[in-house]
Amino acid sequence: MLIKVVNPNTTWSMTALIGQCARAVSSPGTVIDAVSPTMGPASIESHIDEALCVSGILEQIALGEEQGADGYVIACFGDPGLDAAREATSGPVVGIAEAAMHAATFLGRGFSVVTTVGRTTGRAWDLADRYGFARQCRGVHACEIPVLELETDPDARTIITEACRRAASQDGSDTIVLGCAGMADLRAHIEREIGRPVVDGVAAATTTVQSLVTMGLRTGSAAPSHVRENT
Amino acid sequence: MLIKVVNPNTTWSMTALIGQCARAVSSPGTVIDAVSPTMGPASIESHIDEALCVSGILEQIALGEEQGADGYVIACFGDPGLDAAREATSGPVVGIAEAAMHAATFLGRGFSVVTTVGRTTGRAWDLADRYGFARQCRGVHACEIPVLELETDPDARTIITEACRRAASQDGSDTIVLGCAGMADLRAHIEREIGRPVVDGVAAATTTVQSLVTMGLRTGSAAPSHVRENT
Amino acid sequence: MLIKVVNPNTTWSMTALIGQCARAVSSPGTVIDAVSPTMGPASIESHIDEALCVSGILEQIALGEEQGADGYVIACFGDPGLDAAREATSGPVVGIAEAAMHAATFLGRGFSVVTTVGRTTGRAWDLADRYGFARQCRGVHACEIPVLELETDPDARTIITEACRRAASQDGSDTIVLGCAGMADLRAHIEREIGRPVVDGVAAATTTVQSLVTMGLRTGSAAPSHVRENT
Amino acid sequence: MLIKVVNPNTTWSMTALIGQCARAVSSPGTVIDAVSPTMGPASIESHIDEALCVSGILEQIALGEEQGADGYVIACFGDPGLDAAREATSGPVVGIAEAAMHAATFLGRGFSVVTTVGRTTGRAWDLADRYGFARQCRGVHACEIPVLELETDPDARTIITEACRRAASQDGSDTIVLGCAGMADLRAHIEREIGRPVVDGVAAATTTVQSLVTMGLRTGSAAPSHVRENT
Amino acid sequence: MLIKVVNPNTTWSMTALIGQCARAVSSPGTVIDAVSPTMGPASIESHIDEALCVSGILEQIALGEEQGADGYVIACFGDPGLDAAREATSGPVVGIAEAAMHAATFLGRGFSVVTTVGRTTGRAWDLADRYGFARQCRGVHACEIPVLELETDPDARTIITEACRRAASQDGSDTIVLGCAGMADLRAHIEREIGRPVVDGVAAATTTVQSLVTMGLRTGSAAPSHVRENT
Amino acid sequence: MLIKVVNPNTTWSMTALIGQCARAVSSPGTVIDAVSPTMGPASIESHIDEALCVSGILEQIALGEEQGADGYVIACFGDPGLDAAREATSGPVVGIAEAAMHAATFLGRGFSVVTTVGRTTGRAWDLADRYGFARQCRGVHACEIPVLELETDPDARTIITEACRRAASQDGSDTIVLGCAGMADLRAHIEREIGRPVVDGVAAATTTVQSLVTMGLRTGSAAPSHVRENT
Repeated sequence: MLIKVVNPNTTWSMTALIGQCARAVSSPGTVIDAVSPTMGPASIESHIDEALCVSGILEQIALGEEQGADGYVIACFGDPGLDAAREATSGPVVGIAEAAMHAATFLGRGFSVVTTVGRTTGRAWDLADRYGFARQCRGVHACEIPVLELETDPDARTIITEACRRAASQDGSDTIVLGCAGMADLRAHIEREIGRPVVDGVAAATTTVQSLVTMGLRTGSAAPSHVRENT
Repeated sequence: MLIKVVNPNTTWSMTALIGQCARAVSSPGTVIDAVSPTMGPASIESHIDEALCVSGILEQIALGEEQGADGYVIACFGDPGLDAAREATSGPVVGIAEAAMHAATFLGRGFSVVTTVGRTTGRAWDLADRYGFARQCRGVHACEIPVLELETDPDARTIITEACRRAASQDGSDTIVLGCAGMADLRAHIEREIGRPVVDGVAAATTTVQSLVTMGLRTGSAAPSHVRENT
Repeated sequence: MLIKVVNPNTTWSMTALIGQCARAVSSPGTVIDAVSPTMGPASIESHIDEALCVSGILEQIALGEEQGADGYVIACFGDPGLDAAREATSGPVVGIAEAAMHAATFLGRGFSVVTTVGRTTGRAWDLADRYGFARQCRGVHACEIPVLELETDPDARTIITEACRRAASQDGSDTIVLGCAGMADLRAHIEREIGRPVVDGVAAATTTVQSLVTMGLRTGSAAPSHVRENT
Repeated sequence: MLIKVVNPNTTWSMTALIGQCARAVSSPGTVIDAVSPTMGPASIESHIDEALCVSGILEQIALGEEQGADGYVIACFGDPGLDAAREATSGPVVGIAEAAMHAATFLGRGFSVVTTVGRTTGRAWDLADRYGFARQCRGVHACEIPVLELETDPDARTIITEACRRAASQDGSDTIVLGCAGMADLRAHIEREIGRPVVDGVAAATTTVQSLVTMGLRTGSAAPSHVRENT
Repeated sequence: MLIKVVNPNTTWSMTALIGQCARAVSSPGTVIDAVSPTMGPASIESHIDEALCVSGILEQIALGEEQGADGYVIACFGDPGLDAAREATSGPVVGIAEAAMHAATFLGRGFSVVTTVGRTTGRAWDLADRYGFARQCRGVHACEIPVLELETDPDARTIITEACRRAASQDGSDTIVLGCAGMADLRAHIEREIGRPVVDGVAAATTTVQSLVTMGLRTGSAAPSHVRENT
Repeated sequence: MLIKVVNPNTTWSMTALIGQCARAVSSPGTVIDAVSPTMGPASIESHIDEALCVSGILEQIALGEEQGADGYVIACFGDPGLDAAREATSGPVVGIAEAAMHAATFLGRGFSVVTTVGRTTGRAWDLADRYGFARQCRGVHACEIPVLELETDPDARTIITEACRRAASQDGSDTIVLGCAGMADLRAHIEREIGRPVVDGVAAATTTVQSLVTMGLRTGSAAPSHVRENT
């Protein structure tokens, strides 16, 4: 099975990290191909970034279709281009916010999201609403570390860990959801520190796609947008 | 006052029609500049189209900022790029689905959307949910006329009118919302025929932007995405 | 175009202020007729007041119909009598809470309402729920200045401004909605002070009615209450 | 215990019927005083009627307070003036739509409302939403018999019974809620005929008020409208 | 009329207290039979306890059917086994959380629940959501007194009273709902102390069942689970 | 990795089928132990059945803890005992309705459930509401084949397939969710026949548990029920 994990930004060190975290949870027979678009924003921290990275995601999916990829992960917590990607391939496509929020709901009644910068929190709420988790999402918290400083700021691990601890306590949440693909390698550390389950979306989305492919499930090719007659 | 009405597709005859409908409802002192991106999809009928037209919308907004535009309309019923556009300018930006749905709620308890092709109905429901109108939106109906045939199909007017009549009756809706910018010129005709208010989003968005500018209201430049602590 | 702006209380100085604020945003061809009922409560600060002012509103609409009014504003933040008024005329009728909340949602994800006395906050929440904005309304805050002291209390402006600042910060709201027609003249001052958009319902409702009339839209005369078969 | 059952219309034969139905379910020690306002609409079939009957309801509550009434029923399915009435007395006040919908939810997952004329169905949906029963309310159906013909139309009983049967079957509802005080005496008959529980609001509201008074519960006099900080 | 009040735990002193509180609000002609299962958990403080007490509840209902009981109260705030109980008898069955929350909504816009230990708060939220009161339930607060210490802890009354006062003030709630059958005898005391209505579920459920039986209403025997075609 | 798949009924042929379907999608290193309680209902077709099977589920989990099981599937579409099971072990526990509904939402906007007998449809709606999928669940349909006849009725496969086809078409759903563990082996056949993705909950829950265990995620042992301060 070939799963393409698309990091929609063009920062290759982050793509490498994402690939590593995806491989750590995939089955023996699964090949993980972690890629970035050839061009696009270096990080996704605004709605403009989200919009501008979609053509790069579609480009990678087109490549994946040629390679015979079985499914796709969109490895940015804003889940950019998810609807478009599902039209571009019948293989399952899963976003990391989507997968992480879903996984969190299996572990307790409520979760809190801890994300990078404050301007991305609105998007996280929008996604929780869209996926049906307005009730389960108890809070979205920024630790105010820009995406590209996650790797370089020596205090990043401590700051994020403390933000997670505070979020869980303030919101009374059972679970923490990490709000950026760039935090994927911190999961186990934070979980040990705060004593509550911590979900990383890269791992969650990778295993979700792997499961859907194993079950033979594909996005309905005839069915991207049916009529709901009545709400 | 200068309002740029951005038709996100590149079909200029539709842009001309949209400009005309916008001008018909604007105040004497308002200049309407109806534009299309220099490149992009000829019509917006899928999530891929919606994604790919956003860079063109942002390009037109960048031009508008140089021209001193006061506000913007996104004249496609999928409201593509709305979040990104609001980051690109502090002048108000309003989508035509958004404006039409808002307008409809002032006229009665429930509205029905009549749109072009079936594959766009899912997006209309998503937008109704996002704007808070899941309860007010009673149905989304496709008349299965592709966007670009709205101008050329000699039966289009009749087919759409009958779809509106059926939608109002089936859903028990007070108001019909036209689900495509290309239907803007049919509003008055359909309203007369079916005896219920019919809302065109191009007119609704144009007057909404004009009103917001008149009141001195702008998208908060510091505020695209604040934390909502608890839902 | 003739728009009647009905202040449902009988305090004429407030009616004068409301008329002024409505005229400041209306188009050249629009005549604003700001009126009060001949009898009724001096201010609307309870559900009893809201109930008792409705016959006065209907009296003014009956007069308006004789004068050939094109549309109506109900200039009290409780939006009293809105359903009844829409039965009494086919011209559009818009309440100031309704219009202000709608306007606020075009400018950001969330708004806070700052109102006069604590006992009116429940009504503001009810209205947010009714209009579909339970998610967008992040908080309703009272500054505990009675309606009739808005004009006379020398500290009113400062107190309200600080309440708005606190509300925006506590709720993480993008926009402030002023919760009383008597605050209409403070909008620009507060906006400058707190650096976020501030919406006044009198202006919002006036421009909304003007827009609906311009588009030829009327409340469906046959359609005040259709069946919604299924929620 | 003295419970005033206020029929907000001025049709005394209906008041008599309502009093009878209330007495049939009240405890031995409870006195039912069924009254109508001295003036007001003969029937409540529109939002204007609902608005205009409130001063009459308040008049009757004021009288009740002098008489030492312990609680009040508002015996019109639109629950007019409920908020105002709760400010006018600290004794519990319950509307018949409110009480009937509450009662229905104890008997099954979903209920259908069968009401008089189509123009009142919108109000029934609004009330279901307000009381929290949007999910439980599966349908609102009109049998198109005007309120005042309930007593005189010889076919009324049959028409309403068949409307109830159809509603239960179409909506898959466990329970039927009768949508007009004037149908109170038909409850047992319809229940026998259709084989599902049928709830009459006059009985439901009377027993609810009686229960609240027995438990010593009163509307909080200091608490008609507190701040809900966040939704 | 015979109402069986089933305390699902096996602590007989609590059953005695519950019986007393039920009798205090029942009508002269109503016989209250307060019972406990022959075996099961001594207190219900977890989901495991809730699950394990259901067969005892069903055993008591089977006995009740032989005795000719007319209706049943489930006297534990988790409302365990409610769906199953409604299948086991056509007499009405009401849970104390359900009845208390319903009662609270007649007395104001919002209520707060004050319960025993923190681990039961999640269940209280689940029930509020299920019954339609997500909006009306403003907070669920634990006073961290285990169920069986309610009778023995000399400070229990003071601690619970202060928790209620704090909850009302923090949440801006009109009404307090006591979150455990073992608190039933504290209602009047707390209400006097904090000056807001306090609802005890044992009393509320007893009067609710009594009212439903008086009205001749039964759980639809053919109707425990019909299809809702569309949400 | 050891996953216990608990069939809560005592029909061993069904347990064997469930085990087979779980094994078909599990990874090479995963051991599936499909079990049934030693006593309990032969099939789960009512709320009473759901209640009475929980002690058997807890018994199997207790055994699993001794065996060192890593996670658990509850293989009945009513997801009985889910909350209790999550208290009995810190290994992840997933219900098949829960997992199937989650999986379906990755494949399209809306799904329909096709279940056995009509009396179980109410439970399916309750679960959709609980998991956040009220909007995504477009319909719940019974094919009126009792659980234990799924194996013996020669027409079962045809009847269920046609019910799925009809459900997808009526509801405009992208995906079908099979509403009974006993239908697990029909998935691929129905999918081929109707041309839309069909989700089996046994497979979905098995892969979900496997993924959660792989990611090191456990139900928070300290966190089954925290306070949500405000909805």
